[in-house]
Amino acid sequence: MTLDIGVIGTGAIGREHIARLHGKLAGSRIVALNDMDRDSARAAGAALCPEARLHDSGQALIADPAVKAVVVASWGPSHEEFVLAAIAAGKPVFCEKPLATTAEACLRIVEAEVAAGRPLVQVGFMRRYDAGYRMLKEIVSTGRIGAPLMLHCAHRNPTVPAHYTGDMGITDTFIHEIDVLRWLVGNDYVSAQVIKGRKSRHAGPDLEDPYLVILKTRSGIVIDTEIFVNCQFGYDIQCQVVGEDGAASLPEPPAVPMRQASMASSAIMMDWKLRFIDSYDVELQEWVDATRQGRVTGPTAWDGYFAAVTSDACVEAKRTGQIVAIDAVEAPDFYRS
Amino acid sequence: MTLDIGVIGTGAIGREHIARLHGKLAGSRIVALNDMDRDSARAAGAALCPEARLHDSGQALIADPAVKAVVVASWGPSHEEFVLAAIAAGKPVFCEKPLATTAEACLRIVEAEVAAGRPLVQVGFMRRYDAGYRMLKEIVSTGRIGAPLMLHCAHRNPTVPAHYTGDMGITDTFIHEIDVLRWLVGNDYVSAQVIKGRKSRHAGPDLEDPYLVILKTRSGIVIDTEIFVNCQFGYDIQCQVVGEDGAASLPEPPAVPMRQASMASSAIMMDWKLRFIDSYDVELQEWVDATRQGRVTGPTAWDGYFAAVTSDACVEAKRTGQIVAIDAVEAPDFYRS
Amino acid sequence: MTLDIGVIGTGAIGREHIARLHGKLAGSRIVALNDMDRDSARAAGAALCPEARLHDSGQALIADPAVKAVVVASWGPSHEEFVLAAIAAGKPVFCEKPLATTAEACLRIVEAEVAAGRPLVQVGFMRRYDAGYRMLKEIVSTGRIGAPLMLHCAHRNPTVPAHYTGDMGITDTFIHEIDVLRWLVGNDYVSAQVIKGRKSRHAGPDLEDPYLVILKTRSGIVIDTEIFVNCQFGYDIQCQVVGEDGAASLPEPPAVPMRQASMASSAIMMDWKLRFIDSYDVELQEWVDATRQGRVTGPTAWDGYFAAVTSDACVEAKRTGQIVAIDAVEAPDFYRS
Amino acid sequence: MTLDIGVIGTGAIGREHIARLHGKLAGSRIVALNDMDRDSARAAGAALCPEARLHDSGQALIADPAVKAVVVASWGPSHEEFVLAAIAAGKPVFCEKPLATTAEACLRIVEAEVAAGRPLVQVGFMRRYDAGYRMLKEIVSTGRIGAPLMLHCAHRNPTVPAHYTGDMGITDTFIHEIDVLRWLVGNDYVSAQVIKGRKSRHAGPDLEDPYLVILKTRSGIVIDTEIFVNCQFGYDIQCQVVGEDGAASLPEPPAVPMRQASMASSAIMMDWKLRFIDSYDVELQEWVDATRQGRVTGPTAWDGYFAAVTSDACVEAKRTGQIVAIDAVEAPDFYRS
Repeated sequence: MTLDIGVIGTGAIGREHIARLHGKLAGSRIVALNDMDRDSARAAGAALCPEARLHDSGQALIADPAVKAVVVASWGPSHEEFVLAAIAAGKPVFCEKPLATTAEACLRIVEAEVAAGRPLVQVGFMRRYDAGYRMLKEIVSTGRIGAPLMLHCAHRNPTVPAHYTGDMGITDTFIHEIDVLRWLVGNDYVSAQVIKGRKSRHAGPDLEDPYLVILKTRSGIVIDTEIFVNCQFGYDIQCQVVGEDGAASLPEPPAVPMRQASMASSAIMMDWKLRFIDSYDVELQEWVDATRQGRVTGPTAWDGYFAAVTSDACVEAKRTGQIVAIDAVEAPDFYRS
Repeated sequence: MTLDIGVIGTGAIGREHIARLHGKLAGSRIVALNDMDRDSARAAGAALCPEARLHDSGQALIADPAVKAVVVASWGPSHEEFVLAAIAAGKPVFCEKPLATTAEACLRIVEAEVAAGRPLVQVGFMRRYDAGYRMLKEIVSTGRIGAPLMLHCAHRNPTVPAHYTGDMGITDTFIHEIDVLRWLVGNDYVSAQVIKGRKSRHAGPDLEDPYLVILKTRSGIVIDTEIFVNCQFGYDIQCQVVGEDGAASLPEPPAVPMRQASMASSAIMMDWKLRFIDSYDVELQEWVDATRQGRVTGPTAWDGYFAAVTSDACVEAKRTGQIVAIDAVEAPDFYRS
Repeated sequence: MTLDIGVIGTGAIGREHIARLHGKLAGSRIVALNDMDRDSARAAGAALCPEARLHDSGQALIADPAVKAVVVASWGPSHEEFVLAAIAAGKPVFCEKPLATTAEACLRIVEAEVAAGRPLVQVGFMRRYDAGYRMLKEIVSTGRIGAPLMLHCAHRNPTVPAHYTGDMGITDTFIHEIDVLRWLVGNDYVSAQVIKGRKSRHAGPDLEDPYLVILKTRSGIVIDTEIFVNCQFGYDIQCQVVGEDGAASLPEPPAVPMRQASMASSAIMMDWKLRFIDSYDVELQEWVDATRQGRVTGPTAWDGYFAAVTSDACVEAKRTGQIVAIDAVEAPDFYRS
Repeated sequence: MTLDIGVIGTGAIGREHIARLHGKLAGSRIVALNDMDRDSARAAGAALCPEARLHDSGQALIADPAVKAVVVASWGPSHEEFVLAAIAAGKPVFCEKPLATTAEACLRIVEAEVAAGRPLVQVGFMRRYDAGYRMLKEIVSTGRIGAPLMLHCAHRNPTVPAHYTGDMGITDTFIHEIDVLRWLVGNDYVSAQVIKGRKSRHAGPDLEDPYLVILKTRSGIVIDTEIFVNCQFGYDIQCQVVGEDGAASLPEPPAVPMRQASMASSAIMMDWKLRFIDSYDVELQEWVDATRQGRVTGPTAWDGYFAAVTSDACVEAKRTGQIVAIDAVEAPDFYRS
């Protein structure tokens, strides 16, 4: 009954998933590993799951009859190949974000899954598993604040490393809002705009920071999000949904209220890894549970594709300053619940 | 030394100002009244300042040698005439907003005051006198949050009456943010955009509600403001300034924290009149004090003009959906401090 | 109609009251001054009210026919004499706390006022005029939280000067809670207990700090108050009323919410003078207004007496560690509203 | 390496622990069950762990060589017998609170464990595993608020069932604070006092409600706790630690901030079962992990004894109104870390 999993990619996130799926969570174990860096895979296996077989390639791991489900945590450009291979093998696959590096590649995966005729692919958008977003979605869903009309959001990091440049504010940072806000309001995006302004002196030479992204949904919901990855003060994720009858916000992470040195204060976390760390556990436990039942309950290949199309539109909007239409293909019936 | 004031306009706001300036505040008294509705003026005088002389016209009141300073609280279309007359008479004048009904008329007042060669005109933008905005401006001014980069604001009313339609969300509601935010960041606006989305079912047929206004300042500060005048839940004014080194927000009005019926809660006021009621007292006391010293320390005719130009641009932006440039004339040296 | 006031005592609080009653507030002016230190009185007059007559004694000031009402702001041991003289002269008198230095002296004032047959005396307990306490009392009074059962309070100062020793935590600090909490719940105290524990290293050698005071009211309400005058972090006044159906707390003073340096924070004021500064204005304005109508609407001589009896019981409770009964005389009908 | 556990007691809490230890948490499984109600045990086994062996008695279960560790979740009066038997068998035992029904019985367990010479017993005080209390303890431990001087606490339930009477406010409710606050400040109690006041009309005839409990620790920390089990508004656990240099409080459970119907609000949970539900997971996972390493890292038998002695003193204090000394025996060196 235990789900036997093979993991492709034993870097940081790969190792964390191995530790979760082999020891921490219930109902799964790691039986096979692969990494382009064979030493990395061997070390991960030795440390975390000594009985797992090491494979020379992701393809070989996927083909291994002992592997009943696949986790893809390798570098982005390899995702498409491994997800398509898992679909071809008829094996459930959990793929870390991004599903693939282009919208076209995502669409190929969508088409392959539709052709396969049964749900196999889940994408690693972990925020849907955050307790706060879930509480917020529940309140929105009950209609207590009426139909959502506007969302005011912020995604703030204290600082980013030197290699964080160009459009990474969209592709690596805002990509999380792209998925989770669409899920939150249950409505697809139709256009994107990026409003740039005064740049922080803390931002590096190859980075616009901060800026405002405006998304609009099919039903007309206006979503503004401040992207500010050198805000200095903390890792700070904000989301307020304004509805026809009231407003509801993402809870702040719990923190000890202090009174000290003429300040009433609560700590804001500085390390983004801590903010959604519980979400990864929930995400993978639910994936294991659903996979054992032959279902996909999390973000689908279609969600991965839609995020990619939206991200592309935001990048273009950032470059041009124009309002850019988000032109996704028609959603296959396969993904309609 | 008491400042002898004549008031033109004895409607609701006029009467409130009379009560403040004749009995509640220190250093002033009302000596003359005028209203187009002579009965209204007579009733106001009888109730609030029986010794004040009733004048047949605003012009006659301004000409009355006993009147040392003028308060204009008549209906908007008459403001230009009375303010110009006060300038011509060399008398300090406090004019309720708007300074005049068009930017051109405001500019005529500006030019008249410049020609007069000394400061005489103050416009009734009372939010600059709110304790919360002042605390916020003080923190921004100290540089504790670094240079302001973005402002996230909201102006929400629970409901509006049936006659509130068309562009009143700009001209009657957002006009307050236009003035106070420019003062808060000390930077002129250069462009405006209005982003409309899904309309609340609570909004009347001739009203867009809510929408988002984006202003950009000369230094590149991006200011987004949600205008939502049928939000149902309360009169709710929000303002967060995000700077290079931190963020600071407008304090919430004091309210008793309750724990009751499975809710931790605090009341949000429903009546906008209560939100800035103390500001009017401070505004007029400071105006009286400054006037007695021959100075203008509050919003000037130039501020009134700049607000009008910005408001016009927002109305156009709302109509066209475009990013509209805010083309004010060059500020006269007269208003440079 | 303006109330002509004589002020006895031109120290710090005396001067502040003079400035309020002569220029800041409406309906009053200062016509006479006295201080044991004649130079102090002369300087105060020169600075604040040059036309006020200087008297050689408080008694002479009270006897001055131009003086229609008296403010006593001299040092505590002189209060009884001046208040009794004002009563004898039939003149309304506002006496800074304490009404007198012993409960017996307070009782003599009560008896004199009762004998005089009309209300003349108000005691300067300014917290009843604080907007926060008033909001809290209004909520308690409406019955929204049901009958009050418990109050949890704190009175914290960052530090105290070296001369603050002995029982001053009761007589100078807790005395404010003694009056305002009795007013808040509308119920007299019947017993007091003081619970001492570990002493802060920041407290001086002749001071217990912090400790807990427990008061119980006639109806059985239990009130615990932490007195901590070297708490370091700020001037912090807390009060939560727990009722049968809910709880309600004193609002925090407004402060700008900040996000900075890994903290979400709001300033706590360090200077106690700022916390209730608006209350003094309201207190004196209401006293002027009521006095002009021949009424006393604020804390009465009886309230001053009851506070003194309670304070005495707390001092004994602090000394003995016992639960001490609060034995006030029966309240005269005169003070029953 | 998996820990093979036998569970005695298959009522509500027993079943929850079985589900955690057999499927949800890592590193353990249930191999044996017993309940005085054999049908209950059979049903629990069928539903949760079909392969577990059913035993006719707790003693037989403990003796089963397949059982490597024991969980006691039977009714209170049976705890002593089973814990002593586990100690005698040299098997680690997790015993739900109370450790035993009298302080004397707890002491017999302490003595048996000391005689056994190695740590075997853990008591089910789950609050030590709550993320909020742990954050609070960490801050207190770092010395950031200085030495703790006072604690202000509250334990509130919305309502209690009719069978909740007499001293259950101490023995079933306050018992949690007794353990967790002693752990929080790392200091034993020396005295207890109970201050009763006005009774809520919502309290049943055989229940005092609310009341205040005052504990004092060896170092002089004063701890006041409001016990109010018919507070109506929610399950509400409060704890503020006031130290020499600042104060720190238990975080509120995360809740969605709402703005609706003239209220800014957040939900307070009504169901106590939800408040510490995550704590049970952490508690048992840490117990499993520590047990597999031959260690006891949670509340010990000594902690169970000390809680019983303190609870007895509180019951006496409630009955007598006196300050009651807490006379525990000297702590064996065995429990000194």
